[in-house]
Amino acid sequence: MDKYQEHLLEVIADLHGIPEGAYNIRSNGQSVGRASTAHIEIEPQKDRPGINVYIKPETQHEAVHIPVVLSQAGLKDVVYNDFYVGEGADVVIVAGCGIHCGSDDGSQHDGIHTFHIGKNARVRYVEKHYGDGDGKGQKIMNPETIVHMEEGSYMEMETTQIKGVDSTKRVTKADLAASATFIVKEKLMTDGVQFAETEFEVELNGKDSSTDVVSRAVARGTSHQIFRAKVIGNAQCHGHSACDSIIMDDAKISAIPELTANDTDAALIHEAAIGKIAGEQLTKLMTLGLTAEEAEEMIIQGFLK
Amino acid sequence: MDKYQEHLLEVIADLHGIPEGAYNIRSNGQSVGRASTAHIEIEPQKDRPGINVYIKPETQHEAVHIPVVLSQAGLKDVVYNDFYVGEGADVVIVAGCGIHCGSDDGSQHDGIHTFHIGKNARVRYVEKHYGDGDGKGQKIMNPETIVHMEEGSYMEMETTQIKGVDSTKRVTKADLAASATFIVKEKLMTDGVQFAETEFEVELNGKDSSTDVVSRAVARGTSHQIFRAKVIGNAQCHGHSACDSIIMDDAKISAIPELTANDTDAALIHEAAIGKIAGEQLTKLMTLGLTAEEAEEMIIQGFLK
Repeated sequence: MDKYQEHLLEVIADLHGIPEGAYNIRSNGQSVGRASTAHIEIEPQKDRPGINVYIKPETQHEAVHIPVVLSQAGLKDVVYNDFYVGEGADVVIVAGCGIHCGSDDGSQHDGIHTFHIGKNARVRYVEKHYGDGDGKGQKIMNPETIVHMEEGSYMEMETTQIKGVDSTKRVTKADLAASATFIVKEKLMTDGVQFAETEFEVELNGKDSSTDVVSRAVARGTSHQIFRAKVIGNAQCHGHSACDSIIMDDAKISAIPELTANDTDAALIHEAAIGKIAGEQLTKLMTLGLTAEEAEEMIIQGFLK
Repeated sequence: MDKYQEHLLEVIADLHGIPEGAYNIRSNGQSVGRASTAHIEIEPQKDRPGINVYIKPETQHEAVHIPVVLSQAGLKDVVYNDFYVGEGADVVIVAGCGIHCGSDDGSQHDGIHTFHIGKNARVRYVEKHYGDGDGKGQKIMNPETIVHMEEGSYMEMETTQIKGVDSTKRVTKADLAASATFIVKEKLMTDGVQFAETEFEVELNGKDSSTDVVSRAVARGTSHQIFRAKVIGNAQCHGHSACDSIIMDDAKISAIPELTANDTDAALIHEAAIGKIAGEQLTKLMTLGLTAEEAEEMIIQGFLK
């Protein structure tokens, strides 16, 4: 791996070198390192690019790292990763994609991740998307996350795209059996002429299933963001979605949540707000000695924290 | 007018006989009474069914009644009513439609109302939709309301559909110049196999324009409701939309608000909630001596008040 890729790995997966536990590192469309453990087996998919990750029932507090880095110009990489999380397991899965672009040719990574989460299993899924480099080529990432949750299972998804991704369409779909819980925390920032579209669709099919989808977004420059979140209640369930956005410069933001109650015992709520940074917040920080730019930056960092 | 029509008039427009001020009463597709006043002139449209209503500038505290009643089976009535509200006028416009159905043949009324609201004018627009009768025919109403608001104008729209409308698609579109304000209060109840779709689209084009769109809805039986509200901020503006729904029996409700900020100084918010009547509310009223049905009815009345 070159120095650009090493830097990307650090940003997207907090990795300095080879991670502990199970991992698969994909670089420029190839697997460049893979390790299984006693409880977590990773093997390549047979008929398409990508891996299968098998996590044994009751596996406790282990981690899987599956970062993807691209520094080769003009590459379009599509990968399918399937996760089978056994009953009662409790694991952390760290994905993420970094693209370094040093030329006029763009690069694209489309990662389709499918999770089969067993009864009472718990998954924390962390995903970061990042781009850098001086090249003019477009850095494009289209992650798709499909989550099937069995009874009593729990998944928390933290997804962050702060910098350097020129275009993204992010699709997340989940279906929940009884007493399953799906939590999403999305952080998104776009700048320049970037475009980001996010789409969540959560089906609450089982009794006492619940979801909480929260997105915080900042749009700067002339960037454009579209946020969609569908929550569908087909049983006695609780659903909440929220989208808070800061709009700056000449950016544009649309927020389109959608609640559908197909059951009398479905309780569904959403809120959304789009606005600019309040003038009094800026003034207050500037009286403490910060410049206008520093004050703005501090507020954005706090908002996306 | 027959006794069914007289009852409809009373329900939709609080009218016992002929109203004071300007009016146009439409019955079974025909105008059956019309009066202008010194400040408000009503004339038939030249090339299509409907009327033009001209309200002189600075007209103060006058009312216009334009109810529509249908009791003839099998009638499909389409009407275009255009309102020209002069600068600085302050008026109340009471519309509404009632259908009585006594046979197996349905009736349909599609009213397309267009408002041109002059500078600093104020309009309170009240619209009720209601159906009754023992007939099995479908009572269908598709009201469309188009509102063009000049600088500093104000419109408050109260729209109520509580009973007896089998199918409705309600479309309301407004565009606002600087400092204009558009307020909507919608109350909706569906029962049986009724279907109701509501669509609001408000474009905040002028500096300091604002809107507040609030819908309260109850869905009973196996009825189905869809609520859409788009608020588009194209300038320094404030927009708020909210949809609160009570779901009962085997009803289905979807709420799909949409916020789009095309200007950094657009501040937009929406909320929506769908849920059933809280058990503790029912219990409390029942300990005061009400039956479960009476308690439910009282809560619904309070919610839609």
